[in-house]
Amino acid sequence: MTEPIKTDALVIGAGPCGLFAVFELGLLDIKTHLVDVLDKVGGQCAELYPEKPIYDIPAVPRVTGQELVDALMVQIAPFGPTFHLGEMVTTIERIGDPLFRCTTDRGTVFEAKVVIVAAGGGSFQPKRPPIKGIEAYEDSSVFYAVRKMETFRDKRLMIVGGGDSALDWTVNLQPIAHRVTLVHRRDEFRAAPDTVNKMRSLVARGDMDLVIGQVMSLEGEGGALSAAVVRTNDGVTSTIPCEAMLPFFGLTMKLGPIADWGVALQDGLVAVDTEKFETSVPGLFAIGDINTYPGKLKLILSGFHEGALMAQAASRYVFPEKRVVFQYTTSSTSLQKKLGVA
Amino acid sequence: MTEPIKTDALVIGAGPCGLFAVFELGLLDIKTHLVDVLDKVGGQCAELYPEKPIYDIPAVPRVTGQELVDALMVQIAPFGPTFHLGEMVTTIERIGDPLFRCTTDRGTVFEAKVVIVAAGGGSFQPKRPPIKGIEAYEDSSVFYAVRKMETFRDKRLMIVGGGDSALDWTVNLQPIAHRVTLVHRRDEFRAAPDTVNKMRSLVARGDMDLVIGQVMSLEGEGGALSAAVVRTNDGVTSTIPCEAMLPFFGLTMKLGPIADWGVALQDGLVAVDTEKFETSVPGLFAIGDINTYPGKLKLILSGFHEGALMAQAASRYVFPEKRVVFQYTTSSTSLQKKLGVA
Repeated sequence: MTEPIKTDALVIGAGPCGLFAVFELGLLDIKTHLVDVLDKVGGQCAELYPEKPIYDIPAVPRVTGQELVDALMVQIAPFGPTFHLGEMVTTIERIGDPLFRCTTDRGTVFEAKVVIVAAGGGSFQPKRPPIKGIEAYEDSSVFYAVRKMETFRDKRLMIVGGGDSALDWTVNLQPIAHRVTLVHRRDEFRAAPDTVNKMRSLVARGDMDLVIGQVMSLEGEGGALSAAVVRTNDGVTSTIPCEAMLPFFGLTMKLGPIADWGVALQDGLVAVDTEKFETSVPGLFAIGDINTYPGKLKLILSGFHEGALMAQAASRYVFPEKRVVFQYTTSSTSLQKKLGVA
Repeated sequence: MTEPIKTDALVIGAGPCGLFAVFELGLLDIKTHLVDVLDKVGGQCAELYPEKPIYDIPAVPRVTGQELVDALMVQIAPFGPTFHLGEMVTTIERIGDPLFRCTTDRGTVFEAKVVIVAAGGGSFQPKRPPIKGIEAYEDSSVFYAVRKMETFRDKRLMIVGGGDSALDWTVNLQPIAHRVTLVHRRDEFRAAPDTVNKMRSLVARGDMDLVIGQVMSLEGEGGALSAAVVRTNDGVTSTIPCEAMLPFFGLTMKLGPIADWGVALQDGLVAVDTEKFETSVPGLFAIGDINTYPGKLKLILSGFHEGALMAQAASRYVFPEKRVVFQYTTSSTSLQKKLGVA
């Protein structure tokens, strides 16, 4: 068994609320590890609207999603949190009072005194394309993300989609794969023009195939894909041999494994109190868009406030002997030392 | 009777929480007037630590009190709030369901559908010097602030104190008053050196008097002061004629008239719920440091969050017919138009 990583606090979700929680926990000397299913920090802000302005962060009249995330990363830097990106926490087991054992889909194991779920709308999960029986091939021949490029070496690979992910991986995997076929429902692409041009050059040189149409069904056995049946827009159906498929149909938000962690839910959200933002499981907290309580607004601001109150309660679990003295960053030399400014 | 100013919302206190409340109310089309006892916006931030850095405003790694206030003023500018500075709301009367009549110590009258108390630690009020019977002369001969310089024309004026207010008013009122006597307990002053030098020049030229000592008692009748008994540090007691006195002993925070408004208090703070941040009086809200609820932290951040949830509830009183649709500044063109950015 993997040696567990021991930590005071495990924060699930590295969006703005998860990041700011590191700050509030840090002021109280609580060390934090963060896990996020995306391969970068910032959650929805960085994934869905990195360049869109936000106007309702108090005292910040205008900030883009990415700028907000960047500012938070500067703010929490003094506390040196450890990030585990591209991983999803799949199981949480309460093994102490409180002590949690958490495992991710990549096999990382944590032992944390408190766990803070800051998972926003839930996990970003790839949208499954409407191809009958595709589940049988998932994780063996059909993949929704590229974890290791080597997986695709010398394979006949079909990539499906017309956005950045589809085009980027087409261009990047073409030199490695035996043959790449890109399938998209129309001859227009939402990806960066430069990447689209690169793909078109490869097609023009005969180094890969482009099919305008849709995948109708898959052929294969025991999870091993052998071909995909594709119908072009002019009605011609053909069977294209392939051993691996990468469908990029965008991301969707799902509550994900949280539903199985034994916390009380309400309307698909995690119910918390407004004093500590603790779930029905003591020591397991939920802040930000994933939680609900009377009056809840899904504002980034509210997630920040929730993190501040949560940290006070978390501190009582992490340091049961210590009396928490509430202090201000403006006047406390002790807090200023932690921030590296005194 | 003064014609009342009619407004959707009256915010009492123009500190950071009061200012941000204007933003959240404005997004919901609620027009706001603000009243503050200080003569400038910003509350404690601007009054007590304008140049001190604050480190715990989310996504703002470092900001001084004054910079925070300035940023909030930029953020709320699109909503054109009206400020009434240097006034204290003294009475609140519920005259409708809900509708409030509020009056200030300067005679301004408001009729507001909702009232939001964002008064921080309460009102900044001048400290009363330890002189027996001084209450009898207050507002007739003894003043803690200068509202109109003309009040002191041709008067024998005693100013007491050694800080900026005492020295500034000594220098400014000396040309108007019949004679100014400055009394301070020691021959050292905390005021700007330039002002101290000006005062010393006036004393050297014989244009005013400086007495190092303490006011022991007052003489006069029916609120009309005639003299002050001053004991110098070497033990000599003398009676100095004066018709007006300005003691500047600093400011203290007091809950002030709020205690008389019929709202439920707890430990000297205003008790609110955590869904709407409403007091025990429907339509009367309290946000920021002045309120209390389970888990309450006196963080600026928390006051911001409270303002956001308060605004939703206020909107239901101000527009009882309208269904409030919760929208995001990032994606709503309607909100962006209000902010002047779409």
